[in-house]
Amino acid sequence: MSTYAIGIDFGTESARTVLVDLADGREVAAAVYPYSDGVIDERLPGSDVRLEPDWALQNPIDYVTAVTDTVPRVLQEAAVDPADVIGLGIDFTACTMLPTKADGTPLCVLPEYRDNPHAWVKLWKHHAAQPEADHLNAVARERGEPWLSRYGGKISSEWFFPKALQILNEAPEIYDAADRLIEAADWIVWQLTGVETRNACTAGYKAIWSKQAGFPSPDFFAALHPRMRNIVREKMCETIVPLGARAGGLTAEMAQRTGLRPGMAVAVANVDAHVSVPAATVVEPGRMVMIMGTSTCHMVLGTEQRLVPGMCGVVEDGILPGFFGYEAGQSCVGDHFAWFVENAVPATYQQEALERKIGLHQLLEEKAAALRPGESGLLALDWWNGNRSVLVDVDLTGMLLGATLATRPEDVYRALIEATAYGTRVIIETFEESGVAVNELVATGGLPDRNRLLMQIYADVTGREIKVAAAQQAGALGSAMHGAVAAGAAAGGYASIQDAAARMAHLRDEVYRPIAANKAIYDRLYAEYVALHDYFGRGANDVMKRLKAIKAKARA
Amino acid sequence: MSTYAIGIDFGTESARTVLVDLADGREVAAAVYPYSDGVIDERLPGSDVRLEPDWALQNPIDYVTAVTDTVPRVLQEAAVDPADVIGLGIDFTACTMLPTKADGTPLCVLPEYRDNPHAWVKLWKHHAAQPEADHLNAVARERGEPWLSRYGGKISSEWFFPKALQILNEAPEIYDAADRLIEAADWIVWQLTGVETRNACTAGYKAIWSKQAGFPSPDFFAALHPRMRNIVREKMCETIVPLGARAGGLTAEMAQRTGLRPGMAVAVANVDAHVSVPAATVVEPGRMVMIMGTSTCHMVLGTEQRLVPGMCGVVEDGILPGFFGYEAGQSCVGDHFAWFVENAVPATYQQEALERKIGLHQLLEEKAAALRPGESGLLALDWWNGNRSVLVDVDLTGMLLGATLATRPEDVYRALIEATAYGTRVIIETFEESGVAVNELVATGGLPDRNRLLMQIYADVTGREIKVAAAQQAGALGSAMHGAVAAGAAAGGYASIQDAAARMAHLRDEVYRPIAANKAIYDRLYAEYVALHDYFGRGANDVMKRLKAIKAKARA
Repeated sequence: MSTYAIGIDFGTESARTVLVDLADGREVAAAVYPYSDGVIDERLPGSDVRLEPDWALQNPIDYVTAVTDTVPRVLQEAAVDPADVIGLGIDFTACTMLPTKADGTPLCVLPEYRDNPHAWVKLWKHHAAQPEADHLNAVARERGEPWLSRYGGKISSEWFFPKALQILNEAPEIYDAADRLIEAADWIVWQLTGVETRNACTAGYKAIWSKQAGFPSPDFFAALHPRMRNIVREKMCETIVPLGARAGGLTAEMAQRTGLRPGMAVAVANVDAHVSVPAATVVEPGRMVMIMGTSTCHMVLGTEQRLVPGMCGVVEDGILPGFFGYEAGQSCVGDHFAWFVENAVPATYQQEALERKIGLHQLLEEKAAALRPGESGLLALDWWNGNRSVLVDVDLTGMLLGATLATRPEDVYRALIEATAYGTRVIIETFEESGVAVNELVATGGLPDRNRLLMQIYADVTGREIKVAAAQQAGALGSAMHGAVAAGAAAGGYASIQDAAARMAHLRDEVYRPIAANKAIYDRLYAEYVALHDYFGRGANDVMKRLKAIKAKARA
Repeated sequence: MSTYAIGIDFGTESARTVLVDLADGREVAAAVYPYSDGVIDERLPGSDVRLEPDWALQNPIDYVTAVTDTVPRVLQEAAVDPADVIGLGIDFTACTMLPTKADGTPLCVLPEYRDNPHAWVKLWKHHAAQPEADHLNAVARERGEPWLSRYGGKISSEWFFPKALQILNEAPEIYDAADRLIEAADWIVWQLTGVETRNACTAGYKAIWSKQAGFPSPDFFAALHPRMRNIVREKMCETIVPLGARAGGLTAEMAQRTGLRPGMAVAVANVDAHVSVPAATVVEPGRMVMIMGTSTCHMVLGTEQRLVPGMCGVVEDGILPGFFGYEAGQSCVGDHFAWFVENAVPATYQQEALERKIGLHQLLEEKAAALRPGESGLLALDWWNGNRSVLVDVDLTGMLLGATLATRPEDVYRALIEATAYGTRVIIETFEESGVAVNELVATGGLPDRNRLLMQIYADVTGREIKVAAAQQAGALGSAMHGAVAAGAAAGGYASIQDAAARMAHLRDEVYRPIAANKAIYDRLYAEYVALHDYFGRGANDVMKRLKAIKAKARA
């Protein structure tokens, strides 16, 4: 008799739910729910309240609906007995956070707060808390806070405390009314189980928590804002639960609404990128997982804590229990190519793609694949959306160099791909220089499926073999694996995530291997990239920042 | 009773002929002849002989046909008595040169040489003599040739002696068979008058001649190639004739073929850019003429010889008798925008232009005009076709910096315009630092008519007023003015080009004046441009040259 688990991957625009067979990880059924209110970045739903630029909100009710919509659908499609579904796990974008009452009621559903944007969910890509992040970083540096170095020396405006501080600064009444400031990931698990937990992953990567030192001190928070001194005690669940643990059993109400068995094991929440690591077969150091989509996350396990410059964070047990989990990132990868196709590819190419009934990306990939390394004569800095690792600087911008009157769209397209590959190599080399080994790459996410040229270029540029995770939905599979661990071996699940990975996670047969002749040319181009990377990125010429300042003034 | 002159402007793709009234310069009639064989860059006409990349040839018979086709047409259209047409002048692209027999017969019309590409006209943009130019510059530097500094320290591959040396290197039989190596400009005057002359302008700017020192020494030429020692004496007309002089009278044969009066005055040949200077009303120092088209030529008059770094040349009497004529250039202006429109503007924009029945350039100009200075956040180096002045380096390439995911085509379009304006400012400042005053700009060529935004940006960036020449065909008008001077005042023409300009050359009423607020922002952006210009252009980081070398190797 087979047993099953469900994984739900809460993305930016939609939630994807899979039901998988615990014997081999096979996806038996899948369903997608696009959020009704999507990303709220212009005005509040059902309201005239307009949002400032850089805001990005969501409606938490969409998350609950995603569960009650998709779970019955996968159960029906799979035609399995709900009694055989033994666990459920979820992963979420992060830091995506919201203010709630003590019983978990989101403030934005209460009529008195509904028209206040700060009552809603702040999505990970809400970028309006940059002044708060700048303030936080300045205070931390001034006080010599020891945790700053674990996050590459800089806390992002996307993370928990800048967002919390923005609420306090701009809407103190919301801050006061909030009994809880909570990750949406933990909130949805609370809705499923009736139990409030705080998962170690988001706490560690997004809320400056560590297993050894806990949260930053009240003195630090008081220096940030006097009323923030006791934010952890007053507004946050202090029980940090390790990944794979059982948060609780499914409530009777949610069982009724989903068709699942009451009391079924629900795992503590997780983050989309992090849950993909075991789903990509990686449960040991030395193999870097690249989750490649609009942006790329790089995840590596280590056995010791090393301070790697410019990474996003290192958290003990943050990816897998028993390891230090390192995260780095590139903020503009698929987005880069999408921008290019939308803004810089001429009508003649669109016409050719239409006639050949292929997409513009495919046409460009074909043409770019006909070029040899170095043949475009171009070099780009992949900073169209700033640089996350290793420079941690959102004010850096994109650069293209080497253009001539003979430069064609495919030359630029290839140069943009190569630039992201150089960016990845900088990250890998920075890890290795800091003592964190990266011997092999495992790719997952949307890009590896869509662009073979890109994969080969990454192998050639990094000089490393790249394998590809078999699962189309690595996030949802990883969540289901955590659901199976939460259920435990006795119930037909697994005792550990390693055990689950050994059975449920797979790689494809195909491997991208570096081609020596290409690698040799890319080594020379990479040296040029590094020189420009350092010239523009490390203070020799801050022209990018000055142009941004002039631009901001011109627009004001 | 009115008197008239004819001017013929021999361009790259066609010749344009005007018949003008000498009283006021009014264009009475005009005609265009597109060359049958156009620019020959793939295979020789009527032959299977293929050309290498970088080659660009023409058929000299096209030049004669241009005369015999257009002159009768303008006479007929104007309905004037040929006896009232007292002079004819021509201007030409340069250096455009060909090998001929002693009687002027082009080698390419002789059956025994017809299949040899070196027997044909080498057009100005024939770029295959770069190795010869490199060799010439190396030898000149080694020998400390004093004339090198008059040409910005570097002789271009487009000029006379690199092209001549390429013939000798690659086709010594053609070099031997050539009794003459001659500018096409001088050759067509020879065909019109039966008199061989060599005009001071092309001799000075393209063949390293100066009024004081003559041509380079036989020792220099021997160092270049032993068989070149006596090239000047053996293959070139040594009688250098000043601009505006009468080369001769129209031959009976050409009178019969054109309908003009035999013996009518024909002026010595001139260069398109140079002849535009008096046609743009400029007959004194301090006012720079910008001939703005696919590329831009900058012409200034001075009363003394100054060595200005990176200009194209300074020639005594080279533009106007009695003055030192300075020439600088930007090799990629209109070409820049044409490249952008062809390669980097998306289908959505083309659709919008189609719907509104306007051109893509006009649409982009409109959208770019809605931006404030600095608002694009972008900065470009306008080196898509190398840098002519002041760096004199064809191996430099284009750069764009400051791109984000919000960057739109109009942002880039504006940045490219601004980059060419910064390039112009570098030229102006280099002239002024060397003691050559530039107080006012006078624009002519195709661009000023087509792009008002560009003109305003140039005024704002340079901080100078820009006036616009009234003549649509400044080259052809200037040639007609020289024809009138060749005829002389006694015949109803003019005694000097100054006298002709006073009556025949006009400015439009419109003036582009710098806007102080824009100028202030552009001063800051220009400082950033100069920093990058010097970083990439003066040896701090030769990445552009290294990328070019890697590209050349990848293509080989």
